[in-house]
Amino acid sequence: MDPLFEWLCRMGDSTLVLGQRLSEWCGHAPALEEDIALANTALDLIGQTQMWLGLACETEGQGRDADALAYRRDVWDFRNLLLVEQPNHDYAHTIVRQFLFDAWHFEALTALQSSSHSDISAIAQKSVKEVTYHLDRSSDIVIALGDGTEESHCRMQDALTHLWPYVGEMFTTDAVDEALNGVVPLPASLRPAFDARVTAVLSEATLQRPESDFSHQGGKTGKRHSEHLGHMLATMQFLPRAYPDATW
Amino acid sequence: MDPLFEWLCRMGDSTLVLGQRLSEWCGHAPALEEDIALANTALDLIGQTQMWLGLACETEGQGRDADALAYRRDVWDFRNLLLVEQPNHDYAHTIVRQFLFDAWHFEALTALQSSSHSDISAIAQKSVKEVTYHLDRSSDIVIALGDGTEESHCRMQDALTHLWPYVGEMFTTDAVDEALNGVVPLPASLRPAFDARVTAVLSEATLQRPESDFSHQGGKTGKRHSEHLGHMLATMQFLPRAYPDATW
Repeated sequence: MDPLFEWLCRMGDSTLVLGQRLSEWCGHAPALEEDIALANTALDLIGQTQMWLGLACETEGQGRDADALAYRRDVWDFRNLLLVEQPNHDYAHTIVRQFLFDAWHFEALTALQSSSHSDISAIAQKSVKEVTYHLDRSSDIVIALGDGTEESHCRMQDALTHLWPYVGEMFTTDAVDEALNGVVPLPASLRPAFDARVTAVLSEATLQRPESDFSHQGGKTGKRHSEHLGHMLATMQFLPRAYPDATW
Repeated sequence: MDPLFEWLCRMGDSTLVLGQRLSEWCGHAPALEEDIALANTALDLIGQTQMWLGLACETEGQGRDADALAYRRDVWDFRNLLLVEQPNHDYAHTIVRQFLFDAWHFEALTALQSSSHSDISAIAQKSVKEVTYHLDRSSDIVIALGDGTEESHCRMQDALTHLWPYVGEMFTTDAVDEALNGVVPLPASLRPAFDARVTAVLSEATLQRPESDFSHQGGKTGKRHSEHLGHMLATMQFLPRAYPDATW
């Protein structure tokens, strides 16, 4: 297993899975502005996926393209963070998931801009502009809904309690990360900035950060995805699976 | 198009799609007894599917088997009633959908027992025993929940209002039905007995039968399925689609 290929799949699969999740809201979001904003975020993430998975395929050098990785792999080959495969549930869950991911994503891309790997650095420089905006938006909505009505506050607190156990995985370090030390930041190094931002936003949102730091594991290593990923892939991969020879 | 093949697909696709829908509750139903009962009903319906679609394949004589019909067709080839592809939503929707289907299914199978087509008659004789029990159960639960708490009553009334526009399709007659006149009952002939039973059960359940008899069309003809069927098939057909050469 090539650590670089593995790491690129982690990046690209996380943006792919979250992009697909967000696209499920298209036409269903609670307000038109939100519907368009989420669809745009989804498109940004799918665009980033093409870059990460495209680079993964170049690295692999076996003639696969990004579509092959997105549409022809099954659950056990996906390397996305468990956080992003969690279902949309209600808008509170969707926004809390987005904020927690954005806060990690922003720190990761900021650090990756100065990667010694020029392609990685270029993708990060392009992506961080989009993600800066994602993070601004999701932070604002977390504050608006957390410090909103009693119902919106309760739903946001529920979502935070439910999704917090998926935060830890973003900062775990394993052999893949260690093999790329110096090329990409060690995940744990991103945590202080993440914690500072999350604490500030949650405080302004009058939301309580859960005390337990228990975290589910297995997404980025591919060892144990939640049941939700398979259902999502069944929908996402339907067309190329059912019609393998289809062309545009 | 052979009317007999078409008609057999209508029967088999309706039991298949409803069986798949019910199986989605497995492990999630609100009470253990209900979980087991729904799973058993799903199994009965899948068993009936094997008979109907198996006979369809014999009729077609092109070497396809029931699995090929179930797993290798796409939305536009499905001939199920629109009612059965509607989502489970809450337990009220699931039970109202079941009761409305059972009440039609029971009358249809009762009449089909005396079909001049011996295979059809045999399948009906075997199936009606199971469906008698399905109808007993769903009638009882409609009454218990309709005439239950304020919340259960409201949910049942909502479900009935929502699903009633899918009743009419069960009794529409088209060229397929007419071509088989004398072999299978005309759908419209089943309506009086259906109406009598439904009126009695709804009355005991303190539920109001919706006044409008507007009905959605397009399921049994395959002309216009709802968006829900494609999503259901994506999940249901995942395995044979993704792994076309898989064997037991």
